[in-house]
Amino acid sequence: MERSLTNKNSSCNEIEACHNLIKKHIHNTPILTSRLLNEITGANLYFKCENFQRMGAFKMRGATHAIMKLTNTERQKGVVTHSSGNFAQALALAAQSLNVKAYIIMPSTAPNVKKQAVIGYGAQIIECEPNLMARESMAKKIESETGARFIHPSNNYNVILGQGTACLELMDQINDLDAIICPVGGGGLIAGTALAAKYHNSNCTILGAEPYEVDDAYRSLKSGKIESNNSTNTIADGLKTQLGDINFPIIKNGVNKIIRVEEQEIKDAMLLIWERMKIIIEPSSAVAFAAVLKAKNEFKNKKLGIIISGGNVDLKNTHF
Amino acid sequence: MERSLTNKNSSCNEIEACHNLIKKHIHNTPILTSRLLNEITGANLYFKCENFQRMGAFKMRGATHAIMKLTNTERQKGVVTHSSGNFAQALALAAQSLNVKAYIIMPSTAPNVKKQAVIGYGAQIIECEPNLMARESMAKKIESETGARFIHPSNNYNVILGQGTACLELMDQINDLDAIICPVGGGGLIAGTALAAKYHNSNCTILGAEPYEVDDAYRSLKSGKIESNNSTNTIADGLKTQLGDINFPIIKNGVNKIIRVEEQEIKDAMLLIWERMKIIIEPSSAVAFAAVLKAKNEFKNKKLGIIISGGNVDLKNTHF
Repeated sequence: MERSLTNKNSSCNEIEACHNLIKKHIHNTPILTSRLLNEITGANLYFKCENFQRMGAFKMRGATHAIMKLTNTERQKGVVTHSSGNFAQALALAAQSLNVKAYIIMPSTAPNVKKQAVIGYGAQIIECEPNLMARESMAKKIESETGARFIHPSNNYNVILGQGTACLELMDQINDLDAIICPVGGGGLIAGTALAAKYHNSNCTILGAEPYEVDDAYRSLKSGKIESNNSTNTIADGLKTQLGDINFPIIKNGVNKIIRVEEQEIKDAMLLIWERMKIIIEPSSAVAFAAVLKAKNEFKNKKLGIIISGGNVDLKNTHF
Repeated sequence: MERSLTNKNSSCNEIEACHNLIKKHIHNTPILTSRLLNEITGANLYFKCENFQRMGAFKMRGATHAIMKLTNTERQKGVVTHSSGNFAQALALAAQSLNVKAYIIMPSTAPNVKKQAVIGYGAQIIECEPNLMARESMAKKIESETGARFIHPSNNYNVILGQGTACLELMDQINDLDAIICPVGGGGLIAGTALAAKYHNSNCTILGAEPYEVDDAYRSLKSGKIESNNSTNTIADGLKTQLGDINFPIIKNGVNKIIRVEEQEIKDAMLLIWERMKIIIEPSSAVAFAAVLKAKNEFKNKKLGIIISGGNVDLKNTHF
């Protein structure tokens, strides 16, 4: 599909520019369909498979964009972030690809397999105590000592634009989607998705999906201010973080609603996709499909895009 | 790539005709590549992903072809086979798609999940004692009672031609492959692969891969006669069967050699593909990639096709 040329505003031009900038460094991931899952849901589902993205998740898009928007002088000093999840690997790999030094702050309790993946992409790990205050103060310390630029995993406008390019590619290929659904963690993906849908000037509804156990975005949209989670007892380990002051206004403006799902629904949805589509998706991605299964009456005969956010799973510790 | 138009013999014309006949009823499955697995092996690997085939395995091809080659009168009486594996599901689904009755003889000990899959595709299951003699005599009984035509899972020329269309599609898309490797169970896939390679008139070497635990094809090629397995203690549950008098001459003529692998090598290869390619392949398919890892010195800088035979795994009983 040709991109719509009407009603461009600044964020529209920005997302197109972002995609042009990063597209050589990322995969334009495949969009899969499944006859069986269409039958089960009664909808026409288009799975945008970011599990096939480089390093296994959409985070590669935002990390790449954030680094590419730095000046040459800034790039020489490197980048720093705090993450024990996909953004750690994403920033490490994007930095390696762009020949930039990356410092990744990880909690001392992070699984060895995650540390090894970051080291494998050539980044330097700095360990800290496993709490928010410790990692934020460590990030400031690294910034001041090295001059490296801090890149937040989700609350950074260039990261948000980058994440939106998954939706942009989806809408470039699939016309007239009635809705797009994606999981909500820190809010970068859904904010970017909302910006990309606006770019395409479509009437497509943007929906989020969250576990009940970490429904901070659901509650934030209800209350109108950023809410946090008292506990984070979910298998969707990518969705434990909260929204930020940069992505929340975009989400309030562009997201229709958040559908919440139970832990067992997440597991069932993940098993169904593994079994039937023969692809590995991570629990956070299964949250979006679980929401579709749960609310399938709303989606009957609709064209629905589902952003499969990633496929990084610790297979040795995954049991159905 | 245009198919070669020279040096056609009868099996060449047959495989093209087979593909034309069945292509509406099967998926032309994707061919995936992986930068990381290329780095690990030093070769250029092209994975023909029959795990994305209908019902999850290449067997759909041969089953569809065998039924389509029956006369209308024959089709009215149905088809019968004995299998507790992928061919059971394949014949059931192909028969359902072509509006033909299917009788599937399964050992009484077959897992319930496999029986349910066959029933889900609308076939009738007939249980028998779990041994070769019982299933063969039950097949004869069903044939004589119903008039249904017996379709052997691997030792049937139309089945062999059907299985060969996976290789045909691979070579249609990827030029100048140095070799193609596939797992060897009953011999239908590798015999069909050899016929397809001959069709393309290429210098491509055809290789088989087998677990040491069921290396009957390896021994058969050495001895020049069909050997069997005294035990079948392998996780590659699709490869426990032996060659037959129809496929063995084709294999002797067209297959260069068989590479054998250990059980742990199969598990390691399977984990590597799940983790890195984010696709689910069954242990029998991992045998082919395990052979490539084992013999990687032979494949340095070669263009190598790997037929991923299927993705049907009992996820609830799979542990790495």
